[in-house]
Amino acid sequence: TQKLLSGRASRPKPFRVTNVDRSVKKGIMADALEDLMNKVGDSMSLDCVSALVLDEDGTGVDTEEFFQTLPENAVLMVLEKGQKWRPHPNSPPRDQL
Amino acid sequence: TQKLLSGRASRPKPFRVTNVDRSVKKGIMADALEDLMNKVGDSMSLDCVSALVLDEDGTGVDTEEFFQTLPENAVLMVLEKGQKWRPHPNSPPRDQL
Repeated sequence: TQKLLSGRASRPKPFRVTNVDRSVKKGIMADALEDLMNKVGDSMSLDCVSALVLDEDGTGVDTEEFFQTLPENAVLMVLEKGQKWRPHPNSPPRDQL
Repeated sequence: TQKLLSGRASRPKPFRVTNVDRSVKKGIMADALEDLMNKVGDSMSLDCVSALVLDEDGTGVDTEEFFQTLPENAVLMVLEKGQKWRPHPNSPPRDQL
């Protein structure tokens, strides 16, 4: 119960993680960025996860602090070495709201 | 005895499960991912359920933890070997919802 003080204390949240060509997407629970990186590697059978970025605009999620601000079910893209985020081919302009 | 912690203790929730071409959809109660997989196989007369994914965006529901975060009446698609999720032909852009 000391976990509450450790900063990793936040409850696991659901995330949706896609690969670079968006052919696979998985629902993954994680309570910290490192936790998510590890689980993504296992779940998607990747040797070396190099980065996680937001699927919507390619924003790199590098820090635990920023990670903790993401909402439940945020969609992330996992990148391996040499891979690069690209926008959705048919994404609607987001300004249509 | 880890059951209470594992999330399998939750009450059954209703789910809506469709097949790969969305020609059949069934309401199924389940309290755990494995439970749902089994019931889907029976209910839809499938030999071998290979995966459950979210109908809305194809996110794979592979873990019990993630499964437990799904809301009541979440719509899932059941995939058999070799089948692949595709978006709704006429789905509105998500931002317009």
